[in-house]
Amino acid sequence: MPNSSFHDPPIFPRGFRCASRNVGLKPQAKDLAIFVSEVDADAAAVFTRNHFPGAPVIVGREIIQHGRLRAVVVNSKVSNVATGQAGIQNVRRMAAAAAAELGTSPEHVLVSSTGVIGVPLPIDIIERGMRGISADLQDNPLVGAEGIMTTDRHPKALSASVGDATITWVAKGSGMIEPNMATMLSYIFTDAALDAVTLDRMLRAAVEGSFNMLSVDTDTSTSDTCAILANGLAGRVDETAFVETLVAGCVRMTEILARDGEGAMRMIRANVRGALNNHEAKRVAKSLVNSPLVKTMVAGADPNVGRLLMAVGKCFECTIRPASTDAWINGYPVVVGGQRLDFEDALVRQTLSRDVVDLEVSLGVGSGEARAYGCDLTTGYIEENAAYYSS
Amino acid sequence: MPNSSFHDPPIFPRGFRCASRNVGLKPQAKDLAIFVSEVDADAAAVFTRNHFPGAPVIVGREIIQHGRLRAVVVNSKVSNVATGQAGIQNVRRMAAAAAAELGTSPEHVLVSSTGVIGVPLPIDIIERGMRGISADLQDNPLVGAEGIMTTDRHPKALSASVGDATITWVAKGSGMIEPNMATMLSYIFTDAALDAVTLDRMLRAAVEGSFNMLSVDTDTSTSDTCAILANGLAGRVDETAFVETLVAGCVRMTEILARDGEGAMRMIRANVRGALNNHEAKRVAKSLVNSPLVKTMVAGADPNVGRLLMAVGKCFECTIRPASTDAWINGYPVVVGGQRLDFEDALVRQTLSRDVVDLEVSLGVGSGEARAYGCDLTTGYIEENAAYYSS
Repeated sequence: MPNSSFHDPPIFPRGFRCASRNVGLKPQAKDLAIFVSEVDADAAAVFTRNHFPGAPVIVGREIIQHGRLRAVVVNSKVSNVATGQAGIQNVRRMAAAAAAELGTSPEHVLVSSTGVIGVPLPIDIIERGMRGISADLQDNPLVGAEGIMTTDRHPKALSASVGDATITWVAKGSGMIEPNMATMLSYIFTDAALDAVTLDRMLRAAVEGSFNMLSVDTDTSTSDTCAILANGLAGRVDETAFVETLVAGCVRMTEILARDGEGAMRMIRANVRGALNNHEAKRVAKSLVNSPLVKTMVAGADPNVGRLLMAVGKCFECTIRPASTDAWINGYPVVVGGQRLDFEDALVRQTLSRDVVDLEVSLGVGSGEARAYGCDLTTGYIEENAAYYSS
Repeated sequence: MPNSSFHDPPIFPRGFRCASRNVGLKPQAKDLAIFVSEVDADAAAVFTRNHFPGAPVIVGREIIQHGRLRAVVVNSKVSNVATGQAGIQNVRRMAAAAAAELGTSPEHVLVSSTGVIGVPLPIDIIERGMRGISADLQDNPLVGAEGIMTTDRHPKALSASVGDATITWVAKGSGMIEPNMATMLSYIFTDAALDAVTLDRMLRAAVEGSFNMLSVDTDTSTSDTCAILANGLAGRVDETAFVETLVAGCVRMTEILARDGEGAMRMIRANVRGALNNHEAKRVAKSLVNSPLVKTMVAGADPNVGRLLMAVGKCFECTIRPASTDAWINGYPVVVGGQRLDFEDALVRQTLSRDVVDLEVSLGVGSGEARAYGCDLTTGYIEENAAYYSS
């Protein structure tokens, strides 16, 4: 789906609105956001596979069993992870506060929190800050996106049409990102009429080739959440067209998250084909976007392309044949038959300086293929993360 | 074995000598080293598991089949990897040049190369530079260690006594290091009398808990080599004592390599116990030393200890029970039962500022244990690796 198919600026589907505020968790920036449907929506969600899920993920897994949501409420700054039973109670209080404000039941409110791990959630501040937020509700998804940012450099929202219906994506990045079954925080809203079981199936398939193929730093957050809400106000849609647009938007949002990885200057896409199977292709593609030496090569636009072979070759359990391995950077051939070509350094340096660096590897052993998304590794990443707790 | 048991300065066993030179691969620094025994030595070696082994590794695997070595010759600056058949021939020429100089057979010379991947080895320069090197041979292992350095900040050699015999370790680091079956380049020399089969068994066991538990950046070099040469001039030794010292020296050298990881300010040791088994303990320990967010936390001495749980929790396939997970930093308790303790930030900041940061995690599910070695992640790593090829 071409990028021009996405609305500019993004809009909400019928019946969805959002609001965001600074309630005092951060000094000035917005730190609380709420997304609301005017009627109950069918819903599905996937969460982090980390063994230490945050309290909101533990409660969210219960809530989503009902397959119905009316609202999503999110705070940033404190993630409410590793906070024990008190953390669980704080999630329930946060849901109750949002439900009271919106006139719905707490069981229909999905709560997310993002920020520092292991610090108690300042629930009193959040409850106080929630009061009157329904008066702020508006139609611009970027307003909600702003309220869920942590180290993101800009708010992230997208929307696209499917027949008479609309799909809107709102997400945040941008470090601790190698999601497994979900991305950091990503919410998808639609006015199409789709039941919870169908939504669950569609969502799992869509994240598999998008958010689950994204890695900023190999670290998997304890708060990853990706939810979809369908309020049905636009009636039934063509399911094939819906899935196609859902996948396209998830991939597009994945690219937006990759570009805004902490400290990132460039997005890296690793395109692997000719692998034994898709599983091995994914493994190799992830190895490429995760290799610190490949990431710093891109950061410095340094034509040290032997590192591509190193990153492919360290997938010990995969079938790799040096003699059948070829590689390109933005279409420029750099490796043939496992040997580095005698290329013009300046040309490779130039192509590595582009905003998007496409690494393409053909393994020549089968028909498996995969694409992974990542970003370069710069001193900006270190600076952000060496003082995240303290700043 | 206490550190005081290592000789200061390090010495060679009977019959071993070394030399190093600048032959013109680098502008000024030494770039060629040779290590020689005055009689043939029994020998064993382990090499990288990367699917793109360098030409010296391909030839080295053949050579070591004979179980006999007289010399090791190493160049830095160019690794002779991804160079095809021409690369193999250059290894043979390099071995022949060393053999001619030393009056031995090329089949008794192990060649290693380290540096940029995918660039042809300037064999003429090396052959020319080798001439007369035997006149430079001397007793100080640090002289040879200097000739094999790449981004290492200092030459690395150790020695210790076992009864009447001596063991000497010479190695280099310091990026692209998550060895599998070996470290980047590490040579062990002894005058103990031990046959090649015994050496092979001892070496594999020793690297398993030392070099193989080291990671600077998760990247596995295409040149990793760890070889041991025993020339027998000191006669037979107590094998138990020999193994104990061999392991202690490999662990000590692993720590030296970790401390000198590219850009590193601090060594990190991850000590995991109470895992389901040793395999899972290793997996969790590696996850801790490999997590960019743990590494930057240490770099910034930022008490963001929730990241320890994140890194433990992303070992999806391991048995992890949040309620039984405890963690300490340099003995200071920071997590109990999966919950962050309400500790004094300043104290944790202080302990994170030490030269060595011991992360200890008790999983409370079994009796598996492991220790992994790593280092913090600083802007220095990025700076070195964003222009490695070009500089």
